[in-house]
Amino acid sequence: MRIIESLEEMREAAAELAAGRRSSGLVPTMGALHEGHLSLMRRSAGENGVTVVSIFVNPAQFSPEEDYDSYPRTWEEDLAAAKSAGVDIVFHPGAEQMYPPRSQTSVMVHGLTRGLCGMSRGQGHFRGVTTVVAKLFNLVRPTRAYFGQKDAQQAVVIQRMVLDLNFPVEIIVCPIVREDDGLAMSSRNRNLPPQYRPRALALRRALELGRKLIREGETDPYLLANAMGQRILMDSEIELDYLEIVSPETLEAVEKLDDLALIAGAVKIGGVRLIDNILVGPDGPWED
Amino acid sequence: MRIIESLEEMREAAAELAAGRRSSGLVPTMGALHEGHLSLMRRSAGENGVTVVSIFVNPAQFSPEEDYDSYPRTWEEDLAAAKSAGVDIVFHPGAEQMYPPRSQTSVMVHGLTRGLCGMSRGQGHFRGVTTVVAKLFNLVRPTRAYFGQKDAQQAVVIQRMVLDLNFPVEIIVCPIVREDDGLAMSSRNRNLPPQYRPRALALRRALELGRKLIREGETDPYLLANAMGQRILMDSEIELDYLEIVSPETLEAVEKLDDLALIAGAVKIGGVRLIDNILVGPDGPWED
Repeated sequence: MRIIESLEEMREAAAELAAGRRSSGLVPTMGALHEGHLSLMRRSAGENGVTVVSIFVNPAQFSPEEDYDSYPRTWEEDLAAAKSAGVDIVFHPGAEQMYPPRSQTSVMVHGLTRGLCGMSRGQGHFRGVTTVVAKLFNLVRPTRAYFGQKDAQQAVVIQRMVLDLNFPVEIIVCPIVREDDGLAMSSRNRNLPPQYRPRALALRRALELGRKLIREGETDPYLLANAMGQRILMDSEIELDYLEIVSPETLEAVEKLDDLALIAGAVKIGGVRLIDNILVGPDGPWED
Repeated sequence: MRIIESLEEMREAAAELAAGRRSSGLVPTMGALHEGHLSLMRRSAGENGVTVVSIFVNPAQFSPEEDYDSYPRTWEEDLAAAKSAGVDIVFHPGAEQMYPPRSQTSVMVHGLTRGLCGMSRGQGHFRGVTTVVAKLFNLVRPTRAYFGQKDAQQAVVIQRMVLDLNFPVEIIVCPIVREDDGLAMSSRNRNLPPQYRPRALALRRALELGRKLIREGETDPYLLANAMGQRILMDSEIELDYLEIVSPETLEAVEKLDDLALIAGAVKIGGVRLIDNILVGPDGPWED
């Protein structure tokens, strides 16, 4: 497994791959790799000649009050995990290379970034994400790029960016990977104080409640959101950031649950922000 | 010479070029081709295996009150001119393909787009330019792309975008091509009412006056701009949009003319907006 730290070396490696007509898969990450990331890497390794994982904690997608400094960094473990998942290249650029002093260009997806995490984290969060992903696409020039459904809005936003800017990259969104008890895997889970770990399931339980109510025939998004929200707020130590029922394409609130919908939420528990979501319609699916 | 009108066909042609390891040059234009454009095409044809010219009057870079509808369109002449200049592919997409209904992504270079034409045309103009150029880069995947120095700010903005987003494209900026009397070639010159044609030289004459004063030792940008502005405003039928002396890299106003500076201006004559510029420092160059 090759480790590349300079943009120039990554660019040359990408050019060699293109010249050799080898397909490549990119898995963009911020490190602190878990089974969710590894599922993306294994999928890529099975579908492409070469798999590149980028590990870059991207300052542009954190607002000043967010957890950039405390975001988990586990470099040695990440390398071992990537190797075990069949990764060929780990691309690990420095922030000073990615954002040199006079850089001033950003990529922005406008409408889709207003709600959900865009409402709570600010549209600047997604501007940071799309800008860095555009940079990674240009540096790595992958055939395919892999993202997790856990960050459902991010996946929709990136697919929109790829369509709108005509990036020659196929976007593949992979299912959420969960702990045994159902908690969605997330690098931020590492930052949960142990006494809060059991409570971290509250959002998952609320989403499961929503799915159960839909299976029983409920189609009113307001009543559904209300029932799910109450389930979360039973625990006074949990802060509910948002819980919304939206179209999986437009991310706009649905007025009636008559088709597949994305139910997505974010909570804060013990100072850590966690997100989760399910896709469900009046005909299921009833499991994920 | 091949004419490509669909994005998909352009994408396939670009993939074939890449697979054949052939270098390609892109000359992005809005058509109404003149000798300025042709100089870019000839340069590209000399430096690349394949030259692609895009012809697309980009609605996103015109504000509602600007001349999108009256912008000259000369398709048949353009094809003949491109062929004569050694062009291999003319890429001519439709606006409905380039901006499908739900497209909502833009590329923005922030600081550099505030002054000069960004002040008068709005930063949205350059957002439209950088967005469409990013799209063209992704569709055509050129080795090199060619722009004219006439649109000096545009050239600086695009070079910044390429650096900031790590596009694997070499940007080549070519000298202004002028009519015999010195008027900078521009597609918009076609829209000049004949009686205004002689007056269209006012901006050029003012820039030459500025250079003469600098050669004589003047280094105060305020005095220089004042003298040049007065020269233009001698003709009460000419509207001076801006005339500024800025750093060629940062586009910020210079306080003293002690290094190479960009003197750039825009005027309105007979309803037509014209731009021109020179690069000059205390040691010249005294001609262009």
